[in-house]
Amino acid sequence: MTASRFITLTTDFGGSDHFVGTMRGVILGVNPAAQVVDLCNAVNSFDVLDGALTIAQAYRYFPPDSIHLVVVDPGVGSERRPLLVQTTKHYFIAPDNGVLSLVMAQEERVLVRHITASHHFLHPVSNTFHGRDIFAPCAGWLSKGVEPEKFGDEITDYVRFALPKPKPSAERALKGAVIKVDKFGNLITNLSMENAPALFAADARVNIKVGQAVVTAIRCTYAEGQAGEVFGVLNSMGLLEIACNRGSAAQMAKAGRGAEVAVEF
Amino acid sequence: MTASRFITLTTDFGGSDHFVGTMRGVILGVNPAAQVVDLCNAVNSFDVLDGALTIAQAYRYFPPDSIHLVVVDPGVGSERRPLLVQTTKHYFIAPDNGVLSLVMAQEERVLVRHITASHHFLHPVSNTFHGRDIFAPCAGWLSKGVEPEKFGDEITDYVRFALPKPKPSAERALKGAVIKVDKFGNLITNLSMENAPALFAADARVNIKVGQAVVTAIRCTYAEGQAGEVFGVLNSMGLLEIACNRGSAAQMAKAGRGAEVAVEF
Amino acid sequence: MTASRFITLTTDFGGSDHFVGTMRGVILGVNPAAQVVDLCNAVNSFDVLDGALTIAQAYRYFPPDSIHLVVVDPGVGSERRPLLVQTTKHYFIAPDNGVLSLVMAQEERVLVRHITASHHFLHPVSNTFHGRDIFAPCAGWLSKGVEPEKFGDEITDYVRFALPKPKPSAERALKGAVIKVDKFGNLITNLSMENAPALFAADARVNIKVGQAVVTAIRCTYAEGQAGEVFGVLNSMGLLEIACNRGSAAQMAKAGRGAEVAVEF
Repeated sequence: MTASRFITLTTDFGGSDHFVGTMRGVILGVNPAAQVVDLCNAVNSFDVLDGALTIAQAYRYFPPDSIHLVVVDPGVGSERRPLLVQTTKHYFIAPDNGVLSLVMAQEERVLVRHITASHHFLHPVSNTFHGRDIFAPCAGWLSKGVEPEKFGDEITDYVRFALPKPKPSAERALKGAVIKVDKFGNLITNLSMENAPALFAADARVNIKVGQAVVTAIRCTYAEGQAGEVFGVLNSMGLLEIACNRGSAAQMAKAGRGAEVAVEF
Repeated sequence: MTASRFITLTTDFGGSDHFVGTMRGVILGVNPAAQVVDLCNAVNSFDVLDGALTIAQAYRYFPPDSIHLVVVDPGVGSERRPLLVQTTKHYFIAPDNGVLSLVMAQEERVLVRHITASHHFLHPVSNTFHGRDIFAPCAGWLSKGVEPEKFGDEITDYVRFALPKPKPSAERALKGAVIKVDKFGNLITNLSMENAPALFAADARVNIKVGQAVVTAIRCTYAEGQAGEVFGVLNSMGLLEIACNRGSAAQMAKAGRGAEVAVEF
Repeated sequence: MTASRFITLTTDFGGSDHFVGTMRGVILGVNPAAQVVDLCNAVNSFDVLDGALTIAQAYRYFPPDSIHLVVVDPGVGSERRPLLVQTTKHYFIAPDNGVLSLVMAQEERVLVRHITASHHFLHPVSNTFHGRDIFAPCAGWLSKGVEPEKFGDEITDYVRFALPKPKPSAERALKGAVIKVDKFGNLITNLSMENAPALFAADARVNIKVGQAVVTAIRCTYAEGQAGEVFGVLNSMGLLEIACNRGSAAQMAKAGRGAEVAVEF
């Protein structure tokens, strides 16, 4: 194995504290040759699903052998395990809470280790900031060429969840959910080309209720939307997104993460 | 032409999604030797003028041959063209919506190409995220040394706008506008040393109305302002800024982007 | 002295303007070989104590000879001096307003210089953005190997403050304060193992009032908190933090920065 240059950061630490800066310092303190790259540090606080969606959308674009540090960790200090995960081309370091579930869903083969090599941790290990004390230094040492098997033994009983699926609610009806609201106020749903192909048919006639909005048009681009219109669009993740041209669908529909998306064909 | 190391990012994607992280991954996936540098990723959503102001303030400080990726792109997926722009010392990759207008206003010579070399895009090209599928990979390939002329032909009918100018409203009066509110709540106006020199004269007596505030003092520094006073200052962009010492002029004046600035000398 | 690669940024400039991007450009324009690393750019506006806490938590993790640029500077353009500070292993460039006080409290030896070498500044020097015109270029030149003594003479009358200490309010009672609210809504207090050891005793019985919350439990981890419970925890800075498991203690207690923390043992 060759040493990796790139370590990406995906966390819910936000930008207003020293947390992410401290992690960058710890990584560079261990390996000054590492390249630390922000993937996203504003995952919703404590929101493991949001973290899982974020890393799953982005990791595959990075160079082979990149190390992805994913710290959305409401269980910090408890018995939840720190993990080192290898896929065919990438490494991941994260708490064992399912935050890598949607990465694993895209990979044929994953090898999961329970990190126990505490000589690679910063001591004393705090109970509230394992990003600094465990995850960042392990990423640093891995990037320096320490072999994955030196961090701990393989396990198979790690936490893993599936993206909640839409459910049939009548013969020609489905109930899905908003799984994320993006920065623009677009409502990203769990309805996809696979689980709701009728939505994306060329001559689809649909009726979608989300919050206070009723959507009857599926458009190809944001710019096709009329002023003030809330409509559907197939987004870059392959999911149905409820959107508004140059506006916030979340505000228009008064709907947010977790809102029901009721579809009739 | 030598390959460039620096690729800057100016976008309205914000920090709470995977968008910017994914673009960083795409760039580094194409050219692991590139240095991706954030210029600003929190341009106001869909706000082409805000993006134009941001890139125009910062680009010239970067090393020669830097590549500036500017993605404020409400027309994504429509017929608006992707552009590669060369100035004497810099490269820019952006949608054809005027977001480079204020850069062009500072440059003697610009060469604008319509990017059509789709073999440099990521396929399939989505309709909602050309930052990932078109702009980022083209920046990566340009930074690797692909020659600008390989991306597409020169055009001259690109979109370009001028910063809205203040207008005379009486013999000794002007109407300007707030063009941006900064993080501190400072109200940045379109009044400058050039178009309103009387404002900055040593013995200037002025009366400026913005929202609910009446400004009668032009000060040299923020720290000269009295507690709770709303005053004017010549800012680092060479524009009149309505400010408050250790406070938010936007909150004090209850004014924001687009507000009228009525000046009497 | 060898040239340094790492320049960290700690500022209150936020992410929505060109400020931080421009500083990155200035640094790289002076020294393209520098590695600019964000420590934290969302210090509370004008809040020197918040800046002091931020840099003090993070700097020591970075590699030796790192240069830490700390720009929280409400006095920009006034007579306050720009400083270059050397500790045993690190360099700091900051305004003379006390923002390095909590770094100095951790260091045995500090050498403080008043930066006067204006040939290293960008000219004309604005009155509102010394981050661009003074601090960033000096960091760039220092990272290129210009010797510290070339920037200006040593001074000893620099501004320095101590973290406000809790005060005894009765025989078995203390009054402390919330010194910071973090991204999760945790209330960080000035009560520590040193100044309030009784709080952290194994069998401690405490009563802590903060805003509308009454705290009677000190827990070891966030995850031990019951749903909706507001409790205390020893945080990664060694300070008492008022927290809530997967929730915001600030919202629950309706308390913020500066709030009184009344402790009875």
